[in-house]
Amino acid sequence: MMNTRGEKTVACHEAGHALVAELVPGADRVNKISIIPRGVAALGYTQQLPTEDRYLMTRSELLGRIYVLLGGRVAEEMIFQDVSTGAQNDLQKATEIARNMVTQFGMSESLGLVALEGQRTPMFLPVPTQGQREYSEETARLVDEEIKKVLSEAHNVVRNILSSHRKALEELAKLLLEKEVVERPALQAILGKTDDGHHGDGKITSSRGEPQLASDHKP
Amino acid sequence: MMNTRGEKTVACHEAGHALVAELVPGADRVNKISIIPRGVAALGYTQQLPTEDRYLMTRSELLGRIYVLLGGRVAEEMIFQDVSTGAQNDLQKATEIARNMVTQFGMSESLGLVALEGQRTPMFLPVPTQGQREYSEETARLVDEEIKKVLSEAHNVVRNILSSHRKALEELAKLLLEKEVVERPALQAILGKTDDGHHGDGKITSSRGEPQLASDHKP
Amino acid sequence: MMNTRGEKTVACHEAGHALVAELVPGADRVNKISIIPRGVAALGYTQQLPTEDRYLMTRSELLGRIYVLLGGRVAEEMIFQDVSTGAQNDLQKATEIARNMVTQFGMSESLGLVALEGQRTPMFLPVPTQGQREYSEETARLVDEEIKKVLSEAHNVVRNILSSHRKALEELAKLLLEKEVVERPALQAILGKTDDGHHGDGKITSSRGEPQLASDHKP
Amino acid sequence: MMNTRGEKTVACHEAGHALVAELVPGADRVNKISIIPRGVAALGYTQQLPTEDRYLMTRSELLGRIYVLLGGRVAEEMIFQDVSTGAQNDLQKATEIARNMVTQFGMSESLGLVALEGQRTPMFLPVPTQGQREYSEETARLVDEEIKKVLSEAHNVVRNILSSHRKALEELAKLLLEKEVVERPALQAILGKTDDGHHGDGKITSSRGEPQLASDHKP
Amino acid sequence: MMNTRGEKTVACHEAGHALVAELVPGADRVNKISIIPRGVAALGYTQQLPTEDRYLMTRSELLGRIYVLLGGRVAEEMIFQDVSTGAQNDLQKATEIARNMVTQFGMSESLGLVALEGQRTPMFLPVPTQGQREYSEETARLVDEEIKKVLSEAHNVVRNILSSHRKALEELAKLLLEKEVVERPALQAILGKTDDGHHGDGKITSSRGEPQLASDHKP
Amino acid sequence: MMNTRGEKTVACHEAGHALVAELVPGADRVNKISIIPRGVAALGYTQQLPTEDRYLMTRSELLGRIYVLLGGRVAEEMIFQDVSTGAQNDLQKATEIARNMVTQFGMSESLGLVALEGQRTPMFLPVPTQGQREYSEETARLVDEEIKKVLSEAHNVVRNILSSHRKALEELAKLLLEKEVVERPALQAILGKTDDGHHGDGKITSSRGEPQLASDHKP
Repeated sequence: MMNTRGEKTVACHEAGHALVAELVPGADRVNKISIIPRGVAALGYTQQLPTEDRYLMTRSELLGRIYVLLGGRVAEEMIFQDVSTGAQNDLQKATEIARNMVTQFGMSESLGLVALEGQRTPMFLPVPTQGQREYSEETARLVDEEIKKVLSEAHNVVRNILSSHRKALEELAKLLLEKEVVERPALQAILGKTDDGHHGDGKITSSRGEPQLASDHKP
Repeated sequence: MMNTRGEKTVACHEAGHALVAELVPGADRVNKISIIPRGVAALGYTQQLPTEDRYLMTRSELLGRIYVLLGGRVAEEMIFQDVSTGAQNDLQKATEIARNMVTQFGMSESLGLVALEGQRTPMFLPVPTQGQREYSEETARLVDEEIKKVLSEAHNVVRNILSSHRKALEELAKLLLEKEVVERPALQAILGKTDDGHHGDGKITSSRGEPQLASDHKP
Repeated sequence: MMNTRGEKTVACHEAGHALVAELVPGADRVNKISIIPRGVAALGYTQQLPTEDRYLMTRSELLGRIYVLLGGRVAEEMIFQDVSTGAQNDLQKATEIARNMVTQFGMSESLGLVALEGQRTPMFLPVPTQGQREYSEETARLVDEEIKKVLSEAHNVVRNILSSHRKALEELAKLLLEKEVVERPALQAILGKTDDGHHGDGKITSSRGEPQLASDHKP
Repeated sequence: MMNTRGEKTVACHEAGHALVAELVPGADRVNKISIIPRGVAALGYTQQLPTEDRYLMTRSELLGRIYVLLGGRVAEEMIFQDVSTGAQNDLQKATEIARNMVTQFGMSESLGLVALEGQRTPMFLPVPTQGQREYSEETARLVDEEIKKVLSEAHNVVRNILSSHRKALEELAKLLLEKEVVERPALQAILGKTDDGHHGDGKITSSRGEPQLASDHKP
Repeated sequence: MMNTRGEKTVACHEAGHALVAELVPGADRVNKISIIPRGVAALGYTQQLPTEDRYLMTRSELLGRIYVLLGGRVAEEMIFQDVSTGAQNDLQKATEIARNMVTQFGMSESLGLVALEGQRTPMFLPVPTQGQREYSEETARLVDEEIKKVLSEAHNVVRNILSSHRKALEELAKLLLEKEVVERPALQAILGKTDDGHHGDGKITSSRGEPQLASDHKP
Repeated sequence: MMNTRGEKTVACHEAGHALVAELVPGADRVNKISIIPRGVAALGYTQQLPTEDRYLMTRSELLGRIYVLLGGRVAEEMIFQDVSTGAQNDLQKATEIARNMVTQFGMSESLGLVALEGQRTPMFLPVPTQGQREYSEETARLVDEEIKKVLSEAHNVVRNILSSHRKALEELAKLLLEKEVVERPALQAILGKTDDGHHGDGKITSSRGEPQLASDHKP
């Protein structure tokens, strides 16, 4: 095989994102996967089809986003004995979602119905939060613990999903290295299932962008 | 039913606010509930009739505000197996009231008659508090503990209120999905009780705004 | 009675300030009490007659100021089953005096003769203290403990004073609701004692301002 | 006696500074004491005669400065049952000297030969130290402990000095109230000892200024 | 020998960098080593041949960079009884890589898949990270522990590598002192192995710059 | 004797610096000692002869600098029962070197090969370090402990050196008070040893400047 280690890593990483997006209940369907580099940072992307604009997101939809974000990294863990820096942006987004679940949305058992910061930057923006922390070190420790719990449980969920579909993961990565772009029908062929009928304007999200999850199409 | 999950969530959420406002002693009566989206953030609103302008608020009135604010989220908890991000703003306001009770109004047993910050932003404004914390980490821990206690007890109170009126909650949410706007008479019909005679200029507060509670009309 | 709960609260609150000022050794005599609202924040005021300009204040004079400041809140605690937000400003001033006693004036047993901040804002100004804390967390904890002790003991003192004069408190509050303004003779009639002869330019201090205590006229 | 409590406090306070300055080995001799108010803050002053310009100060000279600074407050403690705010500035200076002994001059056993801040404001200037603390909380706790130890031991020393000269203290305070200004001969008469021959340009230091201590004239 | 201690230190230091770069799997091959001083700070440099541009780096490649960075210091430890300040810049870079592995790339077992800072300065830039730390002291302690673990294990690895090649290290340092510049063939002669065929534009990195490691040429 | 205490302190202090510089392996030889005041801050100086420009310094050379810096203070401790403020600047420099050894140069056993701040001010500059601390409180405690250990061990080393040469110390201080300037031959006569042949442009360093240590002339 003539592919560099970098190309193999990107193909594996995108295949991980795409498979988790297909397999997780409530995630937007995958329209296209590409490993053609775009610009300096985006080495590949997975394009999902959003099915409904929404202002509200549920706890399980937020978890679904985290699952898809971790899919790239977990795929690397499974295929190589080594992991790469390619997950940095995914981890930032997944951590930010977990943090908002705990500190803004009252979705943590141990912290309860509370909003721990008066005002934060708009969710999913890359600007870091500045300003004086208003709560105690003890509460900060609880927040960190809850974020870690959300992410650690998500890590397990994604590992289970991809372990059960390891053959599909390897086939999809291989196809990506061969073709560089994989469209929905080929992805479905690999997963051996038919399209559930969604169509729409594919919103392109690079592997460093955030996948769009559909909320109303749980099996 | 043709409603999206988002619409159902908003109807349930507003029905929760409205029922708690009707059922909590001393809260302003509800004039109108709407789930017609207004602007980008407000997905619905519950309009209450303030009965008296006031500069002073009592401890029980502040708790009443917290109850109404938590009503939307608790309704979601009861109707769906999932909760949404729709409570973010409500939680911020409820936490801010609880914080002021503890740090500014001397309403916490364990901290006593003390004002823990020299000067804060005007209550209920969305601007976060900045500036150097003057007290110790130990006091910060006590403050967090007291805030958590206030909110946790309020959570229980609201759960009890809405559990005892679950049928009304479901009916009101269903009516909202059907009509999009519900006026006071229909709300009263659902609750099976008559108006206690309040009239006034309905001050419209979106589901993200703060409900107005009347102070002098406790049963 | 046609008075609103808010008016009753203000009358009770001002009556508490005024009675403590009359009964605490070394406080300035009360000239006039009013519950006619002035401006947006001041709902009432108690006017005291300062008897001597001073640059130095003694420990017991500082405690006397704290007693008068807490008088409004303690009166509310005694008369109503509920307390109001009306004490916020009083608590800020009482806490600031207690803090200065501990950190600036060497009046705390456990911290001893020490000045814990290099320079603070002029005492009693509403500007909060900014700047890097120079001492350890352990010392900050001791400071908080001492402030709490000063305020907690003052709370008890004021409760005892007003408990022993509950009838006067209720009568004064009732008179205030009736007349809106009560002058010194009427106050003295209620307390059943004669003026101790002080005259002077009555310095008006709103219920949110700081009472002036006379230092040299202890009984 | 027609003097106000404030005047009595100032006379007592200045008498305390002056007596300690006379009685502590190595302090500059006292030239004049005055309780005529000057400006808004200085209620009195004790003028000492510096006997030698110096750039170096020894540990015992620094302690001597602290003793003189605490003299005013300790005199108040002994004469009245109450203490006043008049020592605020003295405490700030005494604390600053103690802090420099511990953090800059390597004069603390438990911290040893170390300089804990890179650069501080010039000693004895009223500008507070700003900037990020470079050392750990544990070290900050040790620093606070050592400062407290220095000041607490100095408190005891000064109490012993003034207790042994209580009669002189009362006489000097009384004379000050009577004459408002007391020159060296009268002070010496009270202490019953002769001048040890120092002359010089009396550098006037208000009760809020720093006393000058002579280093080479220990008995 | 007429060389100064400083020259001997630089030769030893560069020989350490170069040998580790040759011996660690996946590091870029060494093209040239020089101890001719350049400018004020760079006392020598080791020039490596990058073999592939990459955007992704794997965990083992990041570790390889750390090994090469520590090579200079470990060589000093082995040859002299004393170590020099020459490793300051290497340690900064190695620590920064270790920190990013732990806080940005999810490569730490105990912290898991998490991104601990929202946004950091571009990796390997000399600008220090500013801004409010968002996580708790407990998490900060874990981060420090993990960084220490990464660096401590790397220290052991490099010690083992250079211990097994001590003769080559001494010979290379001696040759450098003699010739001042050593090219690849001479280095290979010392190591007794042949070039594995890489050619390319040698990117010069001073002993204070960061060595380039090739990722795809593991034995 | 007509010398003031201040002059005696300066002579003793400079004699301490000079003797340690002569007796510590690897320190630059002393060319001249003076106690003629220069400007407002420098009360005396010890001039050393640097023998080699260097960019690298070894651990033992850094320790040698600390020894010479502490020499002045230790001499005061031995000769007088009292210590002076004259060591403030020496302590700042010694602490800064110890801090750099621990946090920048990887010369601490317990912290290992790590760089704890991204970028610091150039070593030995008087500008204090600003900026957010990146590591945990636990690491800060370890850093303080290591700095204290370095300085405490250095204190012992210097005490031993000067104790073994107390007669020379007293003679040198006496000669300085007599002559105000002492050149190398007189110093050597006191120490009873011959020059080891170094010549060079004497770089004058005041007692508040940093002594230059030679690195290549260990006995």
